[in-house]
Amino acid sequence: MPVRTVEPLHLRLLRSLRDEGAVSRAELGDRLQMPRPRLLAELERLVGLGYVAEAGLAASRGGRRSTLVELNPQLRFAAVDLGASSIDVEVVDGRLEPIAAYTESADIRNGPKVTLQRVNELLHKARVDGAYERLHAVGIGVPGPVSFRDGVPVSPPIMPGWDRFPVRELLTREHGCPAVVDNDVNIMAIGERHGGVAHSVDDFLFVKIGTGIGCGIYLSGEVYRGTDGCAGDIGHIQLDSHGPTCSCGNVGCLEALFSGAALARDANAAARNGSSPALAERLSIRGAVTALDVAESAVEGDVACIQLIRDGGRRVGSVLAGLVSFANPSMIVIGGGLAQLGHILLAEIRSVVYRRSLPLATGNLPVVLSELGARAGVAGAAVLASDVAFGEAS
Amino acid sequence: MPVRTVEPLHLRLLRSLRDEGAVSRAELGDRLQMPRPRLLAELERLVGLGYVAEAGLAASRGGRRSTLVELNPQLRFAAVDLGASSIDVEVVDGRLEPIAAYTESADIRNGPKVTLQRVNELLHKARVDGAYERLHAVGIGVPGPVSFRDGVPVSPPIMPGWDRFPVRELLTREHGCPAVVDNDVNIMAIGERHGGVAHSVDDFLFVKIGTGIGCGIYLSGEVYRGTDGCAGDIGHIQLDSHGPTCSCGNVGCLEALFSGAALARDANAAARNGSSPALAERLSIRGAVTALDVAESAVEGDVACIQLIRDGGRRVGSVLAGLVSFANPSMIVIGGGLAQLGHILLAEIRSVVYRRSLPLATGNLPVVLSELGARAGVAGAAVLASDVAFGEAS
Repeated sequence: MPVRTVEPLHLRLLRSLRDEGAVSRAELGDRLQMPRPRLLAELERLVGLGYVAEAGLAASRGGRRSTLVELNPQLRFAAVDLGASSIDVEVVDGRLEPIAAYTESADIRNGPKVTLQRVNELLHKARVDGAYERLHAVGIGVPGPVSFRDGVPVSPPIMPGWDRFPVRELLTREHGCPAVVDNDVNIMAIGERHGGVAHSVDDFLFVKIGTGIGCGIYLSGEVYRGTDGCAGDIGHIQLDSHGPTCSCGNVGCLEALFSGAALARDANAAARNGSSPALAERLSIRGAVTALDVAESAVEGDVACIQLIRDGGRRVGSVLAGLVSFANPSMIVIGGGLAQLGHILLAEIRSVVYRRSLPLATGNLPVVLSELGARAGVAGAAVLASDVAFGEAS
Repeated sequence: MPVRTVEPLHLRLLRSLRDEGAVSRAELGDRLQMPRPRLLAELERLVGLGYVAEAGLAASRGGRRSTLVELNPQLRFAAVDLGASSIDVEVVDGRLEPIAAYTESADIRNGPKVTLQRVNELLHKARVDGAYERLHAVGIGVPGPVSFRDGVPVSPPIMPGWDRFPVRELLTREHGCPAVVDNDVNIMAIGERHGGVAHSVDDFLFVKIGTGIGCGIYLSGEVYRGTDGCAGDIGHIQLDSHGPTCSCGNVGCLEALFSGAALARDANAAARNGSSPALAERLSIRGAVTALDVAESAVEGDVACIQLIRDGGRRVGSVLAGLVSFANPSMIVIGGGLAQLGHILLAEIRSVVYRRSLPLATGNLPVVLSELGARAGVAGAAVLASDVAFGEAS
């Protein structure tokens, strides 16, 4: 319908410098199709605010050489990806290139105070190490539903103590800059769209298969978060009304049948009941087997492991087939820890999706692995942080 | 993210007159929060173009009485809803009130030429009957996927001969005005949002249960059509890998288990095998039983009929539970012919959705029947037609 979406000028300009780097004023004017006087005035303003800086002379195009402009080299954003059992922190520059990065294990169930205190310690450490003088924004993803507007988690099932905890407010106060809070799967989708395989794709699903299963949704070029911020919670779609009991209390949820936790359970069973010699050997050496053991044993040709992955792929595929019929996306990206199961998983997902969805919806539907892998989350948190900082420059 | 949606002034103004009727210039300025000189100039322009007219004097607010403005009383839109076996045509005025309405049986499989010729005949008849002098736009819904941008059906499964037929072009040429083509379920959702139970709701699903099953999707206040225009095709989501064969060639699709066609099949079986005395009696009188017989027999207390409806509700509910987890809408509207199964159906759908979706997503999720019933489709086609006509006034 005839509704126009207009991005404010300063946002287009700053995003262009972020995504395409230093540029002459003349080229920037061409790129943004903007009259020169208006562009020069806006650049002047953004230089004054400390967002934009001069960057030497451009190569000659004949005549007087033009001066390059770029994002202020002092711009710094913090990007945080909280997992169920991990903290990933990066400090990035204006072009979202990492200056410092920290990864460590941590249990989200320790609650918001302990967890966010650790995030703050890592960020202060980065400052002491020289990664930044001051932060211009912080972006953070958490493994549960979020009210994006309010900057708080909302009834997150695996995050006891986090319900409506003022995450954004705490980070803003601590670092003296704006902060933005989103769901872990949304930030992965944002990262993959900015710098990964979904670059510039407007309608796609990012399916994270890790400890649990969730889905980031891009529709018409925007993240779709739903009425309560919990859109994409596909791990609890029921596949089998006689299936195993899920952590949510229902039975036969996708996540109860296939996820990091379910695969570890099934792999240990296969090691013990003798159906998988490869897993049995790994179990005897290490005392437990994981999803990675299944992946490696499958590559070595262990039939039971190949079957475990295929069963999982079939289950994910049958949920995705329904979502493809519903949402008619133009790409599906598979990420999260279990993406390491690789081609066998992907082939099975594809096979089910292509067979079960409307042909029109799958005629040109790539189903692909995440390009950014474990970095997708922090990459997206950095994009969110820069967007919120740029938004302040109005 | 900081992206602003800006509706052009003329569109806001014309939509306001359409949806709220005659108004004084002063009130209109307040309503649209627009400076008076700009408003008066725009009104002047729209009067000149024939969209707006003077409508007498307003009641006094003290001082000089203000003149009312309204949409030109001569504005006429045609609204067409093509079903699998029906044609509904209305001619409406600027406020979308029906001036003339025609309903008749027709088989969509007769192809586009025969069907659209009949549509044109009905519209010419409306002119001869005095419903209009000229049409300002035509809106039409068809029972299959549509490329909204191109104005053509795309690989519609139950519409042989319609694939990429230039529906919009033909109607534009015939009636000398813009035309707009959409999917039948989308126009029902648009109608329900404009003048029904979903009034002003930004994120909702309109589930049509008729001969087949489909879903109109509103996200962030806009119809979401998907990459290929086939979003919402939920009738072919698989529920039971050992279920009956579907018209699409797969097995166990929702539509194969519950829809107008499936219910007629199951009702005739229940009449013949003796499980439903009420249906057996109706069968003996009329030679066949339909969904309406099931509805009436259930109200009379026939146990088998109540069970048939409950089974259907459970199946629809289990697909919707997954979609609620995925899309986190703020309302679900049930429409289409089988909505006549009424409260028993609705109660079962609600029960499954509330039990199986994430509590956060169902905490405040009304599941309600369509208010517009059989008129939802033409009502939405009229909204689309007026929007496209108003869009031309730029």
